[in-house]
Amino acid sequence: MTEKPINTLFTQDLRVLNMGLESFSSTLTGMGVQSTHVDWSPPARGSRELLNALDSLSGVQAKIQAANDKAHEIILKGKPELVDIGIAEDVIPGMRKNLFLHAGPPITWERMCGPMKGAVIGGLLFEGMAVNREEAEELAASGEIDFSPCHHHSTVGPMAGIVTASMPVWIMKNKVYGNSAYATLNEGLGKVLRYGAFSEEVIEKLTWMKEELAPVLKAALKLHGPIDMKNIIAQVLQMGDEGHNRNRAGTSLIIRELAPHLVMLNEKKEVLSKIFTFMHLNDHFFLNLSMPACKCIIDAARDIEWSSVITAMSRSGTDFGIRVSGLGDQWFVAPAPRVDGLYLPGFSEKDAAPDIGDSVITETVGIGGFAMAAAPAIVKFVGGSPEDAVQFTRNMYEITGVENNIFQIPALDFRGTPTAIDILKIAETGIFPVINTGIAHKDPGVGMVGAGLVKPPEDCFYDAVKAFAEKYGT
Amino acid sequence: MTEKPINTLFTQDLRVLNMGLESFSSTLTGMGVQSTHVDWSPPARGSRELLNALDSLSGVQAKIQAANDKAHEIILKGKPELVDIGIAEDVIPGMRKNLFLHAGPPITWERMCGPMKGAVIGGLLFEGMAVNREEAEELAASGEIDFSPCHHHSTVGPMAGIVTASMPVWIMKNKVYGNSAYATLNEGLGKVLRYGAFSEEVIEKLTWMKEELAPVLKAALKLHGPIDMKNIIAQVLQMGDEGHNRNRAGTSLIIRELAPHLVMLNEKKEVLSKIFTFMHLNDHFFLNLSMPACKCIIDAARDIEWSSVITAMSRSGTDFGIRVSGLGDQWFVAPAPRVDGLYLPGFSEKDAAPDIGDSVITETVGIGGFAMAAAPAIVKFVGGSPEDAVQFTRNMYEITGVENNIFQIPALDFRGTPTAIDILKIAETGIFPVINTGIAHKDPGVGMVGAGLVKPPEDCFYDAVKAFAEKYGT
Repeated sequence: MTEKPINTLFTQDLRVLNMGLESFSSTLTGMGVQSTHVDWSPPARGSRELLNALDSLSGVQAKIQAANDKAHEIILKGKPELVDIGIAEDVIPGMRKNLFLHAGPPITWERMCGPMKGAVIGGLLFEGMAVNREEAEELAASGEIDFSPCHHHSTVGPMAGIVTASMPVWIMKNKVYGNSAYATLNEGLGKVLRYGAFSEEVIEKLTWMKEELAPVLKAALKLHGPIDMKNIIAQVLQMGDEGHNRNRAGTSLIIRELAPHLVMLNEKKEVLSKIFTFMHLNDHFFLNLSMPACKCIIDAARDIEWSSVITAMSRSGTDFGIRVSGLGDQWFVAPAPRVDGLYLPGFSEKDAAPDIGDSVITETVGIGGFAMAAAPAIVKFVGGSPEDAVQFTRNMYEITGVENNIFQIPALDFRGTPTAIDILKIAETGIFPVINTGIAHKDPGVGMVGAGLVKPPEDCFYDAVKAFAEKYGT
Repeated sequence: MTEKPINTLFTQDLRVLNMGLESFSSTLTGMGVQSTHVDWSPPARGSRELLNALDSLSGVQAKIQAANDKAHEIILKGKPELVDIGIAEDVIPGMRKNLFLHAGPPITWERMCGPMKGAVIGGLLFEGMAVNREEAEELAASGEIDFSPCHHHSTVGPMAGIVTASMPVWIMKNKVYGNSAYATLNEGLGKVLRYGAFSEEVIEKLTWMKEELAPVLKAALKLHGPIDMKNIIAQVLQMGDEGHNRNRAGTSLIIRELAPHLVMLNEKKEVLSKIFTFMHLNDHFFLNLSMPACKCIIDAARDIEWSSVITAMSRSGTDFGIRVSGLGDQWFVAPAPRVDGLYLPGFSEKDAAPDIGDSVITETVGIGGFAMAAAPAIVKFVGGSPEDAVQFTRNMYEITGVENNIFQIPALDFRGTPTAIDILKIAETGIFPVINTGIAHKDPGVGMVGAGLVKPPEDCFYDAVKAFAEKYGT
């Protein structure tokens, strides 16, 4: 378009761009004038404190950029391999009988939400440390059980994320940086521990998983050799998964990988058939592989001085917490938000626990909500339209530092997924990470009630920015 | 936009829409004027003969529409189920020892292209009817072997499509209309019969498939029970497949479905492991299931008087042929076109045989090239950009009668795939079916050299329109 002299402006139809109060725009639209309202807000929410914090960092941009470049390189080079299955207390650092790991930042029994309490109860029943709910609740409240975040033990747990000493766990190893990560095996949908259910069928299934499923898969994996998870995740993004709440392709690929080896074991055919059926009927089987794969990638980028890259996002159903590379082990915490979602028949928003689980680790390395454009069919599970899914991904490029080199989105012409979330970009743009997630019932013992989208609480990101400015600002 | 008085026209920037000669548009663009060239051509290619044909049908539109409505209903209601595996001569109607089925419309040995001759040679070696190439060629040319299109026997074959008496075949049954369809089991990529290879390894693999693979899969399928192929195809469209040249999801789903039953058989573990490995390493395994599923759907819509819906498209590597519901068994044939594609290392366009195979049956029921928008990653295999893939699907809505009720495209907001190709719409719009396909070497005995996109020859469609007008026009 060529530049126009001002005197031609009013010989044309007016087209208005409106920023700020939306009512200005809707008034014009009501008068038949073409008006587009721009969803804009001032940088740093217009908060003087935040603007000062960002200002204080303007002189050290080069140092921050260099540190983030280093973080990006580590994240992009990370190569998680699925190497083995072990028992939690044998392999997870610091794990012991009376230690229960949980999702989210640190929390006490008293502050735990319903589904997390339910999963703790289930964990105590599974470990044989209690024989019923009452006994379990008493023990949990007694102080004899220590609670610690999965994240403090190189581990991630979906939903309640309870990991106890004798549970089997996947072992993921970052081949480039040497660090490991762990996650339990996925139990399927319905009545399951991670959603806070602890009935007899839940404990029976956990026992079967420990005694039969895990040893058999471990043996098959040994025959197969390490599985390159980065390659598998790259493939599932070309097959309609995003690796957090849609894992149908991932589960299929793992079945294909392991099948030729599973049948080579000296196992009864009924055992093998049950295992194949279990994996086949549970499309979330892959989630507990994508999560530790992501944890394994991002953990290598922790503790980089001057880096503003997020190294963990996690929720306990009570709190939402984040960690930032340049701020070490510190958690920045705010109340866990509600999930905007679709509910299973018979349930509604009033049944829902707040946002819960470590699964949002996937978003920190550019999959999950950040890769929704690769998985348009996920909207059938979490709500919204396929167009929204594409837009979510596009928005995430605004708050990330780099485009992934391996994880690509065919529909965006194989553009790399938005990777490495930068708290400073969040503060500057007012755009927050998009997260998709399952929804647990708010009471212990019930289970899953739906799935949906979450907008994380602004405060924990802004608090992190202020702490970052305090540490590094001039 | 409000209507503008003419005198304001020249106070604005001009924006030009150009139809016809593209040079008018490019001249304007060169002068800095914004100009959009519209890729338009007159209906019926501007041919008086075709326009007359279309005109002669204008008085019977209602009858045609009613017949096409019936065809659409049959296509949408069709429910192909995978029910069994059998030996060709036991199950395919009319099959016998000295009958060789082939892809495409009817053809003689003399007119067959290189890869089809190669596959006939391989078929004769496999059947033990010849011991070497020379003997096979002599026998094929002797008149003792009858050749007949797969399509004449409720069968479809990818590429050369050679089916011989003792080959195992999938049996697909249309549960609603009772008709059956058949296809061989897919051999994998590389040196394979369907691409015209006939070396010892090819024959050995075919023998293994007959003696071990097929009986084991047949037994597993029996334990599983019929597999609802419409459901599976609907799923793969949500997993980045289009069911013709991208079948990674479909192959995965079939492995998942059969695995729990395969392990229940009393087979040696080495046998099962080899079978799982064979399927795992061959992402086209599902093609030979999607093809007869589509054949089974469309065959129920054959022979509907007054219907202008295409019931078969098929290529022999020499000819490209189509059939139309209201024109019965007649083939309309034109020379098989070249494929515009990507080549394997060491090969180029000069090595390529023309378009070949019955696999384009998938496009007649709304998958394959017509569903490319569901499979953006396929462009890595057949060329083009993901945007092209979406545009191909959009174009196909112009020449089809109905949107599929079950096959949906997430990226197009779950719009049903364009289904039931109408020769009259092709003639009116000048838009031709988009087909993606593998490319065979032009010589016997070599195999696959690439994959790409095909524009079918216009003449066979226009000839069909003329014949349709002759039969039904007034």
